[in-house]
Amino acid sequence: MASKTPVGFIGLGNMGNPMAKNLVKHGYPVIAYDVFPEACKEFQDLGAQVMDSPADVAERADRIITMLPSSPNAKEVYTGANGILKKVKKGSLLIDSSTIDPAVSKELAKAVEKMGAVFMDAPVSGGVGAARAGNLTFMVGGVEQEFDAAKELLTCMGSNVVYCGEVGTGQAAKICNNMLLAISMIGTAEAMNLGIRLGLDPKLLAKILNMSSGRCWSSDTYNPVPGVMEGVPSANNYQGGFGTTLMAKDLGLAQISATNTKTPVPLGSQAHQIYRMMCAKGYALKDFSAVFQFLREEETL
Amino acid sequence: MASKTPVGFIGLGNMGNPMAKNLVKHGYPVIAYDVFPEACKEFQDLGAQVMDSPADVAERADRIITMLPSSPNAKEVYTGANGILKKVKKGSLLIDSSTIDPAVSKELAKAVEKMGAVFMDAPVSGGVGAARAGNLTFMVGGVEQEFDAAKELLTCMGSNVVYCGEVGTGQAAKICNNMLLAISMIGTAEAMNLGIRLGLDPKLLAKILNMSSGRCWSSDTYNPVPGVMEGVPSANNYQGGFGTTLMAKDLGLAQISATNTKTPVPLGSQAHQIYRMMCAKGYALKDFSAVFQFLREEETL
Amino acid sequence: MASKTPVGFIGLGNMGNPMAKNLVKHGYPVIAYDVFPEACKEFQDLGAQVMDSPADVAERADRIITMLPSSPNAKEVYTGANGILKKVKKGSLLIDSSTIDPAVSKELAKAVEKMGAVFMDAPVSGGVGAARAGNLTFMVGGVEQEFDAAKELLTCMGSNVVYCGEVGTGQAAKICNNMLLAISMIGTAEAMNLGIRLGLDPKLLAKILNMSSGRCWSSDTYNPVPGVMEGVPSANNYQGGFGTTLMAKDLGLAQISATNTKTPVPLGSQAHQIYRMMCAKGYALKDFSAVFQFLREEETL
Amino acid sequence: MASKTPVGFIGLGNMGNPMAKNLVKHGYPVIAYDVFPEACKEFQDLGAQVMDSPADVAERADRIITMLPSSPNAKEVYTGANGILKKVKKGSLLIDSSTIDPAVSKELAKAVEKMGAVFMDAPVSGGVGAARAGNLTFMVGGVEQEFDAAKELLTCMGSNVVYCGEVGTGQAAKICNNMLLAISMIGTAEAMNLGIRLGLDPKLLAKILNMSSGRCWSSDTYNPVPGVMEGVPSANNYQGGFGTTLMAKDLGLAQISATNTKTPVPLGSQAHQIYRMMCAKGYALKDFSAVFQFLREEETL
Repeated sequence: MASKTPVGFIGLGNMGNPMAKNLVKHGYPVIAYDVFPEACKEFQDLGAQVMDSPADVAERADRIITMLPSSPNAKEVYTGANGILKKVKKGSLLIDSSTIDPAVSKELAKAVEKMGAVFMDAPVSGGVGAARAGNLTFMVGGVEQEFDAAKELLTCMGSNVVYCGEVGTGQAAKICNNMLLAISMIGTAEAMNLGIRLGLDPKLLAKILNMSSGRCWSSDTYNPVPGVMEGVPSANNYQGGFGTTLMAKDLGLAQISATNTKTPVPLGSQAHQIYRMMCAKGYALKDFSAVFQFLREEETL
Repeated sequence: MASKTPVGFIGLGNMGNPMAKNLVKHGYPVIAYDVFPEACKEFQDLGAQVMDSPADVAERADRIITMLPSSPNAKEVYTGANGILKKVKKGSLLIDSSTIDPAVSKELAKAVEKMGAVFMDAPVSGGVGAARAGNLTFMVGGVEQEFDAAKELLTCMGSNVVYCGEVGTGQAAKICNNMLLAISMIGTAEAMNLGIRLGLDPKLLAKILNMSSGRCWSSDTYNPVPGVMEGVPSANNYQGGFGTTLMAKDLGLAQISATNTKTPVPLGSQAHQIYRMMCAKGYALKDFSAVFQFLREEETL
Repeated sequence: MASKTPVGFIGLGNMGNPMAKNLVKHGYPVIAYDVFPEACKEFQDLGAQVMDSPADVAERADRIITMLPSSPNAKEVYTGANGILKKVKKGSLLIDSSTIDPAVSKELAKAVEKMGAVFMDAPVSGGVGAARAGNLTFMVGGVEQEFDAAKELLTCMGSNVVYCGEVGTGQAAKICNNMLLAISMIGTAEAMNLGIRLGLDPKLLAKILNMSSGRCWSSDTYNPVPGVMEGVPSANNYQGGFGTTLMAKDLGLAQISATNTKTPVPLGSQAHQIYRMMCAKGYALKDFSAVFQFLREEETL
Repeated sequence: MASKTPVGFIGLGNMGNPMAKNLVKHGYPVIAYDVFPEACKEFQDLGAQVMDSPADVAERADRIITMLPSSPNAKEVYTGANGILKKVKKGSLLIDSSTIDPAVSKELAKAVEKMGAVFMDAPVSGGVGAARAGNLTFMVGGVEQEFDAAKELLTCMGSNVVYCGEVGTGQAAKICNNMLLAISMIGTAEAMNLGIRLGLDPKLLAKILNMSSGRCWSSDTYNPVPGVMEGVPSANNYQGGFGTTLMAKDLGLAQISATNTKTPVPLGSQAHQIYRMMCAKGYALKDFSAVFQFLREEETL
């Protein structure tokens, strides 16, 4: 165990924190950085080295994982004044698990490549719970020969590591999945709500949909109607789960990718707008299945 | 066999024809009517009695199945000048398998009840192939005590007969399922198209969606992208299957029900509009999964 | 004056009340009916004869105006058990100023014609204020030869009486106008909100739009942004004006007409859904320009 | 005349060509660059100096106008390897008339400011015809003290020069106007089409809309229905005017700005999707009012 080479980890927020801890658990010496120093403290206590900048991490570790909230943060961490690229070593492997615009992933990959290092995008699916349990899914884009090296690290944090293709395709797979998820969740909420107003029992309707062509993950595994299933956010006042504001962010990325590639996404666009409106109506921190509640409310005079 | 009492069948079109034949196969003497006399000929040869009007059918049969293309046709057949209600016998069981506005089903049920007879709505899912094979699904609304009597006949034509609740709920279940189906099909087409434009292999993307939260019947059983699955309309130039014009009709019914119950269906509305536009762009008779092709086309200057 | 023949008036609600009063002011003896007897009292005091049913009105007056809230009410008043048609006199002129489905207007016209009388649809634009002031706009559909006879009465209540074509086209003109109005109002709200978030002064932006191709009635006459114009609902917390619930109703009629004629109305559909959602979020009684406020709210965590 | 100091002009395409010619007409010596050398030839014949790079233009002119097709082109011309900023003189005035993302305008302004020069965004409204006639509208964002200096040049090319506020607000005003324009154009097309299907005469319907609350520039000045107005693209098979592909581009910019500022634009999003679909259906080069034709087509079996 002691012989394992250190791994850099930049971005120790809600997701990065448990992910980095899983690396520690698997015996990797972690070299940590976060823009908020207090986020690092815990890792100091766990024996990690805490650095003052991404550049300093890059100086000491030739494998680095980044987990950041948005495209501008990722740009700053890689190409900023004290960014990774200032001191990156040739041959380093840089894995970005942030969910960002695939076009930005490609830009970063080019800049990394110029320094003689390797970049892979590896966004995750699964929330904080999966990050803690170490069973995230990673969707990985980048040069195929490097996939095994990345997989060695990622399997410490996830149970499912899927190679998707060239750089940016990890992001692409994630945002395509989440766009379809949002659409089918809203669709499920609309169909369940309409059925209830037309006199159907919600449990019976869910059963009929699930044995028919309307079946989807949102209807059979994560039903948004309270009382239909147990152990899902709709059974717990839409607490926990995947927040509406996060879904709105991913739909924004899907929209930007679609705009840039001139791809029509009429329902994806509308789903984005609906989650955007929900954020402004007090649903930002509720699970995204709360769209049922949003649509359910009745006219009040 | 010979002792079976006759069953009336009104509406011998694409769907009604094979359905009525299955009744004949099960030994029921059929008393037939269709507005187009040539549609009845075949049944005459099979030994059915052919009548001149729905009223005449009602005079001779106390169990009648109707299979008609739209709400106005159903109104005409039940309450028109030579309609069933002119000569219906007390205690008759009238089963309407048309897909129509549930509000119209309720109206017809009231009119039938006034005559001392029983009305049930029992729209089907599954197309012409399922009608021939006798494995349609029936979604049945009406008085629960009559369900067994209806089921006896419906099982001759379908493998799945589901009781949904009071009159109109059979229609409600069907249009809710089909609305969700349309939404998730368009969503699948958008997600697959966006992924392909972002560099993903379609088969790989379908695999990722199907093991993730984007999974739905349209992605895992009826994928709209040519080359991803075999034995589906997308593998056969979108021939066969469920026509775009039929989906547009069902979405129109969903829209009318939603408007009448003041239920917001933002994606259901949009799906309706998309299938409506497709009908005008030459897709009317293609399978509804052709929405992938519709969205896929590239800008041409 | 005393020689004027009496005019029947059925439906004395928010709009019907001031309309009927304007007939009285112009010297017409009014024969009144409303389903709520208390609505008639005021008219008794004004010297009007109050009847017990639409049929009784039809027995005494050969010109009747109806002003009812919805299609089912209109059907009941014309073709119900005590409806106008039970006792209508040959040659009577029946003018329906309700806003209803043009297909229902056509149905009613047919039924009226069978009795040897004449039906015209004449929905109004302009709200309660215009009804009081007698400057409503009437959009009239029906046989052209009868237009002058209708106009004689309608000019007592409105300043603008427009002949639109055959029966139903009055309704058609109204719902087409209101659909476009809703779309351009929401569009104005979106454009103003986006501009403000991008750093533009709202008054300046309104000025630029109004001298450019974005100009519309909603931007130059009824701007939805508080502070841009005076004397409009947005200057008065969206009180008064044209209620969101009424706009949602008219958009529902437009949607039903579009569905029945297979006309794609992608933005009209979406506008309907937005006003429907607003009704459920507490905006039902606010002016429809409050869509700016609805879209303006910021994400709250 | 001879004493006028030279003006740089970069980007001599469909719009830049006639704009630069108007500068020449007004006696300004022009120092020209275009990425396609043949675009410069004509200007050489007119006495302009033609340079090999934007940097070379910046070396010789301290007032430069840029007119480029997209954000990446603008970035390249300003900050690329041979970009303006390589040789820009302190105190220079750089005016960008491209239509691009206002966030990019702000980025460029920062970079320009660092070099001690001034940047203003000044996108235009009005097409090639207005560019030739010298009556474009310029919407200008930037430091107010520099507005007069900019106006001196812009009035040679346009009849209307509006100061909008800080850097980026010129772009903001343009994309907000064009988003509202697209929405009201589609809305007009939907309303006219629905009205026609409901039996209204298109000229009469246009007249009614234009005296009512549905009135907008698209209905009263640029009506999309053939036969309603003369001298507009709809009277000429949708040739000329403002191309669908350009409208789709501007709606893409509006969408990106809305996504970045978390502004809900439900109809703006949908308008973007509709113009995107039209581009793929052969309408890319037709005037954007051809959306009427797109929606008008009837179902064909």
